Amino acid sequence: MEHTFSIGIDIGGTNTDIGLVRDDGVCIVRTNLSTNSYYDAEKYVADLWDKISNMLSANNISTVEGIGIGAPNANYYTTCIEQAPNLNFKGVVDMKALFARHTDIPVTMSNDANAAAYGELVYGGAKGMKHFIMITIGTGVGSGIVIDGKLLHGHTGCAGELGHSTLIIDGRQCNCGLRGCMETYCSAGGIRRTAIEMMNEDKQYQGRLRNIPEDALTSRDVGIAANGGDSLAIEVLRKTGHLLGIALANAVTFSSPEAIFLMGGPLKAGKPFVEPIIESFKEHLLFVFKDSVKIKLSQLPDNDAAILGAAALTKAKL
Amino acid sequence: MEHTFSIGIDIGGTNTDIGLVRDDGVCIVRTNLSTNSYYDAEKYVADLWDKISNMLSANNISTVEGIGIGAPNANYYTTCIEQAPNLNFKGVVDMKALFARHTDIPVTMSNDANAAAYGELVYGGAKGMKHFIMITIGTGVGSGIVIDGKLLHGHTGCAGELGHSTLIIDGRQCNCGLRGCMETYCSAGGIRRTAIEMMNEDKQYQGRLRNIPEDALTSRDVGIAANGGDSLAIEVLRKTGHLLGIALANAVTFSSPEAIFLMGGPLKAGKPFVEPIIESFKEHLLFVFKDSVKIKLSQLPDNDAAILGAAALTKAKL
Repeated sequence: MEHTFSIGIDIGGTNTDIGLVRDDGVCIVRTNLSTNSYYDAEKYVADLWDKISNMLSANNISTVEGIGIGAPNANYYTTCIEQAPNLNFKGVVDMKALFARHTDIPVTMSNDANAAAYGELVYGGAKGMKHFIMITIGTGVGSGIVIDGKLLHGHTGCAGELGHSTLIIDGRQCNCGLRGCMETYCSAGGIRRTAIEMMNEDKQYQGRLRNIPEDALTSRDVGIAANGGDSLAIEVLRKTGHLLGIALANAVTFSSPEAIFLMGGPLKAGKPFVEPIIESFKEHLLFVFKDSVKIKLSQLPDNDAAILGAAALTKAKL
Repeated sequence: MEHTFSIGIDIGGTNTDIGLVRDDGVCIVRTNLSTNSYYDAEKYVADLWDKISNMLSANNISTVEGIGIGAPNANYYTTCIEQAPNLNFKGVVDMKALFARHTDIPVTMSNDANAAAYGELVYGGAKGMKHFIMITIGTGVGSGIVIDGKLLHGHTGCAGELGHSTLIIDGRQCNCGLRGCMETYCSAGGIRRTAIEMMNEDKQYQGRLRNIPEDALTSRDVGIAANGGDSLAIEVLRKTGHLLGIALANAVTFSSPEAIFLMGGPLKAGKPFVEPIIESFKEHLLFVFKDSVKIKLSQLPDNDAAILGAAALTKAKL
C-alpha cells in the first residue's frame, strides 16, 4: 500500500521541531529551528518552509496531505498565533497567510494540548473513541477535549483550558492572574511549589530534596526522591495526585468521556504519582459515571508526541 | 403558513405535565397526570397516551412531529428512565418501547436540564447559538450543555452533571454521596443551608428569617427577605452568587460557550442574587474568555419552560 505523509510542526518558545509523519504514525525524519532567534514572523516562516521543502526533496516526497502546527496561543478558527507571551512574535501572527506565500499545502493549527489530543486520536490510544480528554502536565496544565470525535474549540476557539479552572477557591496565585487554578497545584510547577511548602513546614526533614537549592528544585527531583523512598517526596506526589484526581472527576461531570489520557514529564515518577491520581479519581467520581471512564497514560512515543499531534491536526475536521 | 406540532411531557416526581406545542414555541393546550399515583410504568404510559390522543382529537390535530420527554435519570441514547430515586417506577423503564405499544410517533427523551437547554435553543434565547450552557437551579443544580448546536451526552449519555463537580474540597455532604458538590451551595437547598448556617453563627440576628421555623425555611423566603433589605438574607445570596460565579467561570474553561443561561426559582430573587453571580463570574473568568460569554436568564416562559424543553427534544439530533 502506498503511504501518505503529513508535516507536523511543534512550536515552542525556544525550539521549533519539524517532522515528516507517515500515515501509520511514524515520524520518519525530523529537524528543528531555533524559535527565539527570530523576531520577524515572516522570516521565521520562510525558513520553516525551507526546512520543510529540503526535507521533502531529500526523502523524494512530492505531495503531503497538510501541514499541522501545534503552537502556544494558537487559534484553530483563524490559524493565527494571538498575543503569545512566550514568543518573540508580537500581536497576531497569521500562519496560514505566511505559509501561503510559499506553498498551497493546507495549514491547520491549534494549541499543544489540542494537538496532543488529536495525536492520541489519530495515532495513539484513543483510536476510535468519540469522547475523551487529554491532559498535558508540564510547566502548566493543558487540556484537549474530544467530543463526538472532534476537537472542542468552542465559541472563541480557545475551549479546553481546564488548567485554569478554580480547584481551590482563593488558593495559590496563578500566572494567569486568577487564584487557585488547577495548574498551580497539578503541574510540574505545582509539584515544585508543594515540595517547597512542605519542606518549609517540616523543619525536621533532612531527606535528599533538602540538599537541592530551592531555585534548582524540579518536579523531576521530587519524582526521583519519591521512587527512592523519600517520605516527603512521596507525600508531595500523593497530595498532587489527590488534587488532580478531583479535577479529573470534575471534568467527567462535564463531558462524560470514555477515557482521560495523561501526558507529560511528572508522570515519569510512575506509581507514587499515578496511583494517588487514580485512587482520588475513583473516590470523587459521581456514581452515574462509575466504571464508565478510564485514566490512561498517553500511548504516543515520548520524543515524537508533539510532532505526531501537530501532524494529526491535518486530519481534524471543524 | 401551516403549523406543525410536537408533544412535550415533563415528568416530575409528583406530577406529569403534558403540552401540545406549536412550532413557534407556544404551548397551545396542556393537561397533567399524577406521577406518584402510578407504580406500574405500563399503566402510566397507557394513561399518558390516552391524555395525548384526547388532546389531539379535541384540537383536530392528526399528526405531530414527535413526543419529547424530560424526565429524571433519563438516558437519551436508550430512551430509558434508569433507577430514578424520586419515581415509583423501579429499575429501567423503556419509555420508547412502552409508547410503541400505542403509537408510532417517534419518542425522544432526556433529563430536565438537557430539555431546558434544547428548549432555549429551539424556542428561547439561544436560537442560532452553537455553544452554550443551561444551568437549572432547583432542589439541586442541573445542567444541559450544547456543543456545535447539539446536546452533549458523552460516552454514557449522562454528560452535563455540573451540579456534582466539586466546588469546595471536603465541603458540604451531598445527596450523591460526594462532598462539596456545587449544588450543595448553589441550589435552592444550598441557599437554605447557608441561611441556616449563618443564623446559627449570628446569634444577634433578629430579622424576618429568624421567625420562620427551620424546617419551613425556603430559598424563596431568603429571596423575599433580601429584597426587603434583610442584611443576613442579602449576604446569603451574595455568598451563593459568589460561589455560583466561580462554578460558571470553571464551566467556561471547558467548552468556551457563547452564553450561559440560568433558570429556576431562586433567580426570582433578582438583583440581590443575580448581581453577585455576574460580578464573581467576571472576576474569575480566564482572560482569554473576557467579553466572549454572556450570563443570561432563560427566555422561556416560566410556566411552560419544562414542556417547551421536552417538546424541543423532538428536534434534537444525535
